[in-house]
Amino acid sequence: MSGASFNCLSALSHTLQKQITSKRVSVGVIGSGNWGTAIAKICGENAKAHPDLFNPQVHMWMYEENIDHHGETRKLTDVFNSTHENVKYLKGIQCPSNVYANPDIRDVGARSDILVWVLPHQFVVRVCDQLKGYLKKDAVAISCIKGISVNADHVCLFSDIIQERTGMYCGVLSGANIASEVAKEKFCETTIGYDPDRSVNPLYTAETIHSLFNRPYFRVQIVKDVPGVALGGALKNIVAVAAGIIDGLELGDNTKSAIMRIGLAEMQKFGAMFFDCDRLTMSEQSCGIADLITTCLGGRNRKCAVAFAKTGKPMHVLEKELLNGQKLQGATTAKEVHEFLDHQNKVDEFPLFKAVYDIVYEGLPANKLLEAI
Amino acid sequence: MSGASFNCLSALSHTLQKQITSKRVSVGVIGSGNWGTAIAKICGENAKAHPDLFNPQVHMWMYEENIDHHGETRKLTDVFNSTHENVKYLKGIQCPSNVYANPDIRDVGARSDILVWVLPHQFVVRVCDQLKGYLKKDAVAISCIKGISVNADHVCLFSDIIQERTGMYCGVLSGANIASEVAKEKFCETTIGYDPDRSVNPLYTAETIHSLFNRPYFRVQIVKDVPGVALGGALKNIVAVAAGIIDGLELGDNTKSAIMRIGLAEMQKFGAMFFDCDRLTMSEQSCGIADLITTCLGGRNRKCAVAFAKTGKPMHVLEKELLNGQKLQGATTAKEVHEFLDHQNKVDEFPLFKAVYDIVYEGLPANKLLEAI
Repeated sequence: MSGASFNCLSALSHTLQKQITSKRVSVGVIGSGNWGTAIAKICGENAKAHPDLFNPQVHMWMYEENIDHHGETRKLTDVFNSTHENVKYLKGIQCPSNVYANPDIRDVGARSDILVWVLPHQFVVRVCDQLKGYLKKDAVAISCIKGISVNADHVCLFSDIIQERTGMYCGVLSGANIASEVAKEKFCETTIGYDPDRSVNPLYTAETIHSLFNRPYFRVQIVKDVPGVALGGALKNIVAVAAGIIDGLELGDNTKSAIMRIGLAEMQKFGAMFFDCDRLTMSEQSCGIADLITTCLGGRNRKCAVAFAKTGKPMHVLEKELLNGQKLQGATTAKEVHEFLDHQNKVDEFPLFKAVYDIVYEGLPANKLLEAI
Repeated sequence: MSGASFNCLSALSHTLQKQITSKRVSVGVIGSGNWGTAIAKICGENAKAHPDLFNPQVHMWMYEENIDHHGETRKLTDVFNSTHENVKYLKGIQCPSNVYANPDIRDVGARSDILVWVLPHQFVVRVCDQLKGYLKKDAVAISCIKGISVNADHVCLFSDIIQERTGMYCGVLSGANIASEVAKEKFCETTIGYDPDRSVNPLYTAETIHSLFNRPYFRVQIVKDVPGVALGGALKNIVAVAAGIIDGLELGDNTKSAIMRIGLAEMQKFGAMFFDCDRLTMSEQSCGIADLITTCLGGRNRKCAVAFAKTGKPMHVLEKELLNGQKLQGATTAKEVHEFLDHQNKVDEFPLFKAVYDIVYEGLPANKLLEAI
């Protein structure tokens, strides 16, 4: 079908479009950790629920490995494709039978009209390079990768890296979501930053993206502000360190909510200053305020910061003691963002970000946090 | 000084105005409960800190009562004025010596250029009537009274009641503030809704109001949206009931933050629909998001709702069992707001408010909350 006829179709209503197009959208998922599998489960459920819109089979790229399964050595993909359970990374959760674990990443890429990226951020560049030349020309991507890549003179979103390296337009999904809870279908919300006007393929409307991810237990809002969605999930971790310090100092809920409000304002300011973000993405969407609340209530950044304020032990020691091999993004993000702001000569415009950096890395006593902001 | 010369002065800078005006502002506080005394303490500290702006003595109306003080029967005002401690309602907190407890409410009213109202809402109308005819013509009021007065066809703010019954322009102070914590100078923020353009007296600029309330431990933001500030402190209690139900059902932090986000959006919608509020007052100010967070973390509405979801006991029983004589505003507000919305034929546009009402009053099971929104 030519570009012209797609343009014509895009002017018609979504319902009409669904009726008259014969092309159904193929969906692939790159990644099969706990979040990847939970996302593939959602996409699989929605591919089944909207057979007019999506091809039923959802291919999920799974890094092949041998596992011990009931005393037998088997391939992880084989176990998944026969049991529909990711016994290694999302045990106890049944995926729909139309999710297919595919060990060939290029095959997954080549099949997909919408390619969902859910893998650890350190693999993104390598996977982009692997997929180059194997992707459909008009495919689009959705990145579910949290975090940002920061160096002294540049803040880079993983969606931008995917877009630059593969040529696919790339939206971002982020919200107050914990993989294990989403997998158990506990109600939560998420935000997808996706601007259909920038996608090369007008078939992939905001409604299509909504239909692919929205579930009764996983409520999706779509906004056009892609960087705002991506930044929320990274910057919140700096604020969570501050909130944890307040908890560790036992200063009470009013002080904590004040810190969260001030932190949210700095997140907005950062987004507006460097990415022209919409302030409402931070203050009203799941990827902003809701994710911030969750992270400040119970996340690992808060947990380490509580211990930091109480014991004075260095963060890298607490990270080892408390996080069981997981990384403390709040401290790293605070450092990277500090270096970037310093290079821009803007450190003083973000007193809370600065205070977290100074406390974690420069020996400022935790109880000086309030004076510093 | 004539109105014309005041108008002239108002065009000059605040600093210049401070230098050339000989008139210093007299401040009075109506109320001396725990919040009233904490607010009088703040005003007293700031009257001392800004002798160019304020008359040093702050009169605080104290309802006269006899108390037992170290085995002796004494008047509460006498004890306060000799010890500077409100031994009955804010024990252990030292107020500055320039706060004077005055048992004559009309004398306090007659002396004050800025009159701060901090008393239980059920006394507002009576006090307005007592003060009528005794107030300065160009005085302004700041209401620190939380809550709204709702009946089927009208939502009334206490600031409006004060304004209508006394003729004073009335702003509103509200935020994530607990009297005992503010009194102990634990850091928090607050929002004051105050529009100097609507005040009859241009001397009382936003800067003057800021100088009267802002302390290093009590950070003030001023916005023009008076109803938004007033509504936040009332509507948050409905959301806190919903958040408590989620906690009681042990659905986790992501579900809770989603409920808080959805609740915040209904608070914004209510404010916009009936009072033309600025949405940012709810989503970015202490009186909105910060107060909501505090209330959903640890307030009494949440506490009762947790027990309600766990035990199924009626709210009025739990109120008696758990709140030690305090009122559960969340349930009452949910009912009043429901009746008002019903009368406006708008119930269905506020599914979370409706669900809380249905659960507390109409027997909807607590575990149906998520389906209902």
